[in-house]
Amino acid sequence: MAKQIPYKIYLEEDEMPKAWYNYRADMKNKPAPLLNPATGAPVTHDDLAHVFCDELVDQELDNTTPYIPIPDEIRKFYNMYRPSPLVRAYCLEEKLQTPAKIYYKFEGNNTSGSHKLNSAIAQAYYAKKQGLKGVTTETGAGQWGTALSMACAYFGLDCHVFMVKCSYEQKPFRREVMRTYGAEVTPSPSDTTEIGRKILAEHPGTTGSLGCAISEAVEAATSREGYRYVLGSVLNQVLLHQTIIGLEAKAALDKYGVKADVVIGCAGGGSNLGGLIAPFIGEKLRGENDYRIIAVEPASCPSFTRGTFAYDFCDTGKVCPLSKMYTLGCDFIPSPNHAGGLRYHGMSPILSQLYHDGYIEATTVKQTEVFDAAVKFARVEGILPAPESSHAIKAAIDEALRCKETGKEETIVFGLTGTGYFDMYAYQAYNDNQMSDYIPTDEELAKYREQLPKIGG
Amino acid sequence: MAKQIPYKIYLEEDEMPKAWYNYRADMKNKPAPLLNPATGAPVTHDDLAHVFCDELVDQELDNTTPYIPIPDEIRKFYNMYRPSPLVRAYCLEEKLQTPAKIYYKFEGNNTSGSHKLNSAIAQAYYAKKQGLKGVTTETGAGQWGTALSMACAYFGLDCHVFMVKCSYEQKPFRREVMRTYGAEVTPSPSDTTEIGRKILAEHPGTTGSLGCAISEAVEAATSREGYRYVLGSVLNQVLLHQTIIGLEAKAALDKYGVKADVVIGCAGGGSNLGGLIAPFIGEKLRGENDYRIIAVEPASCPSFTRGTFAYDFCDTGKVCPLSKMYTLGCDFIPSPNHAGGLRYHGMSPILSQLYHDGYIEATTVKQTEVFDAAVKFARVEGILPAPESSHAIKAAIDEALRCKETGKEETIVFGLTGTGYFDMYAYQAYNDNQMSDYIPTDEELAKYREQLPKIGG
Repeated sequence: MAKQIPYKIYLEEDEMPKAWYNYRADMKNKPAPLLNPATGAPVTHDDLAHVFCDELVDQELDNTTPYIPIPDEIRKFYNMYRPSPLVRAYCLEEKLQTPAKIYYKFEGNNTSGSHKLNSAIAQAYYAKKQGLKGVTTETGAGQWGTALSMACAYFGLDCHVFMVKCSYEQKPFRREVMRTYGAEVTPSPSDTTEIGRKILAEHPGTTGSLGCAISEAVEAATSREGYRYVLGSVLNQVLLHQTIIGLEAKAALDKYGVKADVVIGCAGGGSNLGGLIAPFIGEKLRGENDYRIIAVEPASCPSFTRGTFAYDFCDTGKVCPLSKMYTLGCDFIPSPNHAGGLRYHGMSPILSQLYHDGYIEATTVKQTEVFDAAVKFARVEGILPAPESSHAIKAAIDEALRCKETGKEETIVFGLTGTGYFDMYAYQAYNDNQMSDYIPTDEELAKYREQLPKIGG
Repeated sequence: MAKQIPYKIYLEEDEMPKAWYNYRADMKNKPAPLLNPATGAPVTHDDLAHVFCDELVDQELDNTTPYIPIPDEIRKFYNMYRPSPLVRAYCLEEKLQTPAKIYYKFEGNNTSGSHKLNSAIAQAYYAKKQGLKGVTTETGAGQWGTALSMACAYFGLDCHVFMVKCSYEQKPFRREVMRTYGAEVTPSPSDTTEIGRKILAEHPGTTGSLGCAISEAVEAATSREGYRYVLGSVLNQVLLHQTIIGLEAKAALDKYGVKADVVIGCAGGGSNLGGLIAPFIGEKLRGENDYRIIAVEPASCPSFTRGTFAYDFCDTGKVCPLSKMYTLGCDFIPSPNHAGGLRYHGMSPILSQLYHDGYIEATTVKQTEVFDAAVKFARVEGILPAPESSHAIKAAIDEALRCKETGKEETIVFGLTGTGYFDMYAYQAYNDNQMSDYIPTDEELAKYREQLPKIGG
């Protein structure tokens, strides 16, 4: 007999996952290898080892080991803010008058405000283990930079964050959280790197982009002794660490004998989506169970739905390896009126392959309807969601309303990746009816598509 | 045999308290009655009923009923964000190298960012039940206003918040959270009330105070049909609702066979402290157990330690009942350089009586040492604390270091009332070494003491 489902399911410490799940091991079509931008050949361990920590390079390249144990030191840190709750959205269901059962995995209850901490602590751990002095990274909205600052403070590592200039100016509070955790925060583009000076010379007055901040952070890491670069999304290693989200969610559902029908995550670079779907996609890949898996992206940055599956640069400066992924072109920058995060031009190579092979669906949502959904959710469920997460909320509400029409009692699970406390300018624009939608035209997208590198077939 | 203590203890839904504990029932010396400012006589139910909801008036005046059941509708809302975790601060203990066992009850994991939601939802519920249209209130830092906005959105009530003008300007994000939950937010003093216009005429350019915002909110409630006033601290009813904090904390400790030695809470108006200590003070009042109970207040607003136990007005406009409490005088306003909340001139009458009778101790801490403690805590425990909460952190660290000296393995429990995400200006001042301490002189305090009303003996 099914137990009554509480509002929030927390796993006990001894029920927590002890290994990350590397679902590349179960993929028949593996994600295409990264290519060395200088030679066009697949990257080797040595190519990557001057950029990333050694053990992270291993994880990046490992397509075969299904489970990778989570080191005790990381599990100790996880214990401080995990398990995150799997919440039954009783009040939202009631509001929508839907027969659907809605669950969300809430990753916002930590000071970084999002799931980003799951990978930050892992990457900081391996850097510490390797005896490094510090790490560099970029941050856009600031969630990843905050998470990394917290992780570095914990392990006593230097942390240098290149923060996209418009965010640096618009989100001074995020910057201060990072500084409070001891990080050095530099607005990007800056005159502290060669690539930064080049970009500033070519585009005076630019307010920066994620791709450009990546280039600066990589340069800063590789030009200093004892530093490596770390990244908060897109990479295989990041998806690996983020599988803790899905593994916990699935364990919580299993504990109460609940089977999901639809699993929904927002998708920017793919870190949350890739983590949330892990055990579900695993069963799907192995043919054990079927699930609808839905990626939700902003209409203003639609890499899955309107991008090209091709090799492209991960960064604007074109210093990073090439990655085969759904991409809008590495020079694509969404309109500044887009407030909702998920601004990256590309998409995780793993998720790109899975989408290409039909294992996951993708849908786009517009900014104003995302904030409509966010406010509706906030008022009944009591959590002010991050704009990113609200993309998933919008899609989940749509699915629940579909169930209302069909009368089907489907179980919907979505990822509530974070909180919106540092996004109040966006909420203010919404509250003041100043928010608009931006959808790139076909012509715009074609322009960037034509600039994709002619490499890797 | 004692079970191993997890990092976080969560109660199950069926272990959650089903009644608030009214510890006035166990006090030999009851708190002194509120006095009608016009007549000087103890207030009656009717005196209060045009300001507060009927059932809340009953709770305010009830000195005898030990347990008051929590209505199902409130417990349903509590289920969305409660139980809050009781966290074992393993990493802080390690950092301090103390034999003490440190626990904190973390109330910050909800969108209001603090424990204030516990009473907001109760007060909104009784307003809804009475068929009211809406409620008015004041807010300083914004935690209470945010909590009330969330509660009113949930029950579909109008919510009008008078926000102290300097906070309204310095904390635009708090204001936007309230607006997102549908509240009307007015900077105080305003020209929308008589008392506001009077204060503006007498003090042009004033940036407002809590006492003044209270006066405006009371006027707005009592001059409109279908509205009542609600308050986030000081009142007996608020302490009653907040006992959920202590009841959960004690149940979590009991579950693992742990007895607290020291219980520590920050104290502004007393809502958190009064809630946290509930079951502990109950056992102490009944002579069943002994605990050290420590109130921590800012050196810049030291009502317990340097105030007078006397009747005083609760508000600057002197329209509210008089309350016998430790007070600095209703015109006292802490220096604007004080960033750490806990700015109220008075103190809960219940806690005042308990302090007067020797059941609780009080200590003061200075602003810079509070932020030192906050940052130390944030870096090892991963939570960025509210400045208010950090007063308790500072005292808990001091107690743990005392245990280190004496070698005693005492168990310390403190209240981590909230998060600091909306207090980043204060953290910025700290990060930039721009923070200073302010301690009122004896002469200043004497000036306000002389203005205390000559009433109630």
